[in-house]
Amino acid sequence: MSDIRIDDLPVRDELRGQTPYGAPQLDVPVRLNTNENPYPLPEELVDRITERVREAARHLNRYPDRDAVELRTRLAEYLTDTTGHRVGRENVWAANGSNEVIQQLLQTFGGPGRTAIGFEPSYSMHGLICRGTGTGWISGPRNEDFTIDLAAAERAIAEHRPDVVFITTPNNPTGTAVPPGTVRALYDAAQAAKDSMVVLDEAYIEFSHGESLLGLLAGRPRLVVSRTMSKAFGAAGLRLGYLAAHPAVVDAVQLVRLPYHLSAVTQATALAALEHTGTLLKYVEQLKAERDRLVAELRALGYEVTESDANFVQFGRFEDAHAMWRKILDRGVLVRDNGVPGRLRVTAGTPQENDAFLDAVRELKKEQTA
Amino acid sequence: MSDIRIDDLPVRDELRGQTPYGAPQLDVPVRLNTNENPYPLPEELVDRITERVREAARHLNRYPDRDAVELRTRLAEYLTDTTGHRVGRENVWAANGSNEVIQQLLQTFGGPGRTAIGFEPSYSMHGLICRGTGTGWISGPRNEDFTIDLAAAERAIAEHRPDVVFITTPNNPTGTAVPPGTVRALYDAAQAAKDSMVVLDEAYIEFSHGESLLGLLAGRPRLVVSRTMSKAFGAAGLRLGYLAAHPAVVDAVQLVRLPYHLSAVTQATALAALEHTGTLLKYVEQLKAERDRLVAELRALGYEVTESDANFVQFGRFEDAHAMWRKILDRGVLVRDNGVPGRLRVTAGTPQENDAFLDAVRELKKEQTA
Repeated sequence: MSDIRIDDLPVRDELRGQTPYGAPQLDVPVRLNTNENPYPLPEELVDRITERVREAARHLNRYPDRDAVELRTRLAEYLTDTTGHRVGRENVWAANGSNEVIQQLLQTFGGPGRTAIGFEPSYSMHGLICRGTGTGWISGPRNEDFTIDLAAAERAIAEHRPDVVFITTPNNPTGTAVPPGTVRALYDAAQAAKDSMVVLDEAYIEFSHGESLLGLLAGRPRLVVSRTMSKAFGAAGLRLGYLAAHPAVVDAVQLVRLPYHLSAVTQATALAALEHTGTLLKYVEQLKAERDRLVAELRALGYEVTESDANFVQFGRFEDAHAMWRKILDRGVLVRDNGVPGRLRVTAGTPQENDAFLDAVRELKKEQTA
Repeated sequence: MSDIRIDDLPVRDELRGQTPYGAPQLDVPVRLNTNENPYPLPEELVDRITERVREAARHLNRYPDRDAVELRTRLAEYLTDTTGHRVGRENVWAANGSNEVIQQLLQTFGGPGRTAIGFEPSYSMHGLICRGTGTGWISGPRNEDFTIDLAAAERAIAEHRPDVVFITTPNNPTGTAVPPGTVRALYDAAQAAKDSMVVLDEAYIEFSHGESLLGLLAGRPRLVVSRTMSKAFGAAGLRLGYLAAHPAVVDAVQLVRLPYHLSAVTQATALAALEHTGTLLKYVEQLKAERDRLVAELRALGYEVTESDANFVQFGRFEDAHAMWRKILDRGVLVRDNGVPGRLRVTAGTPQENDAFLDAVRELKKEQTA
């Protein structure tokens, strides 16, 4: 049997020759490649998770709450408290990471015979989840400075009439924030073209200089705001993504969600973390300051740096970005090569990690000019 | 906005008018409707889960092991130990419940323009996940006694040439085991028709009078055995499903799996449970004895009972199964109406729960004959 390979199996044609998504998981001293929060959860939160999971484990023979009512209630409170816009449990849905949220949205509103558009470079999973759900993918344009070219985006929407429009703000991997006016205009363009759904991916919004655009949900029933606990909550290992939208959207995704998709231990852990938002958001403030320091120091070194509202910074330019990635790695620091020509992305880590990174690129700059 | 409903949103046509999957979650004294294991996890396992989750929570700011290497290794050992057939980590894949395993298989081998067949009545999620993945669903036949009609099944496969064939053994909701010869013949029929994938759903296999058909994997690279920790492990709340297959199948599902789909707390909890399989499998023995008692007592009461190799029993016949379901519920016992004409399904609970159920149906039988 050992001579059988993927291509000997009846996999779908569009999967042939593809490789799985994912950054290399290398064992290096400083890992600044996956936009993880560098701060471990505080010990009092670890205690609280342990308590909540112990309680959940006592009932683990039973299925979890299929509708995650308590969790959605607490997520709605978090959104209301941090944005000032009232959101109720009926507006919120949660799943295993924002990737599963997006997958459920595409199963509901995309899928075979339908299309989605995103403005690239952006979060590459949008396109990959389209492929996984049979949704056609349209790559929309950006300006040279990685902002969205509104006129070109509107034209693309009018021309392709996509069923789903993705807007990522702050954008990954560039860090670029999208102004509210652009989102409003793209929503209007999407409605004019086809009454399409618009998904605003706010995975990194807590790190933004500006505000969440959650307030735009009012009067826009086809707008969905997607969020995650992976970044601001320092809980990438938890896999908890959520969305806020009109209650009808929440009702609609129930038609495709796998029943009991969210385990009792995930719900318990997320609820514990939501009791500690005050502490966790203090780390966000530290990371924002470190992100701003990275931008300033990289610029001082003469690198070209994209404006960032996220917990990472895109910098360049390099004739051969992958060669530069390798050189930084050789100095013990793992950053990300996202395939954006001439650019790399570095996650804001602890001050010590960022120093190690800055030392590495400083040395490389010297070598280059020497 | 409150007047917007699902039908005002651009949901896919095939979802319009549908309702979400799921048994009613009613608050009644005796719940025998979702095939849960009635025995809570032993306290020493709850302790171990707590320890392992505490450790995982300390690194929760980092993404989980994307490939779940330790977990897959332990699952492979469990399969090897309990079936006598050697299975390695490279043969095993895990996801959030066997539903997600099946979804990934259909995204890889089914999807738009492809079809899957199942022999109904069977686990209704097979068809629903087909719908969610754009895979066409073919309802294959069964005999009157709910066994698979091999000749008719072979004809259906030859005629429809499905890309995926589902065989559920023991079958849900009927409890019916599928003989190894039938699986072999259906695999051959599927290969003759189209080199199709065959998914053997063994969610309830630990409760069977017979053995797992895991040994059939040898020499059958297009066979996949699907399993779950929800039932035998008493961990429905954990949402941990897994599969065993040729390593090329494991490689293939990586192309569609969402990256980091399995949270660190889920992996930690599952690993703890796998350290306690000895204790957990003792509960399985108790449940098998109770299942056999339910079959015997229901037959003694004059009900028509389908042979069961699972932790539940299908019984009838009723002119109006739903009315009977309601009458049993009125006596404080929740069973399942799966829509199989004239039949209901009861999960084997604790001896006390089963007594409560048997008392209820005994009373109803008296009323009926009075």
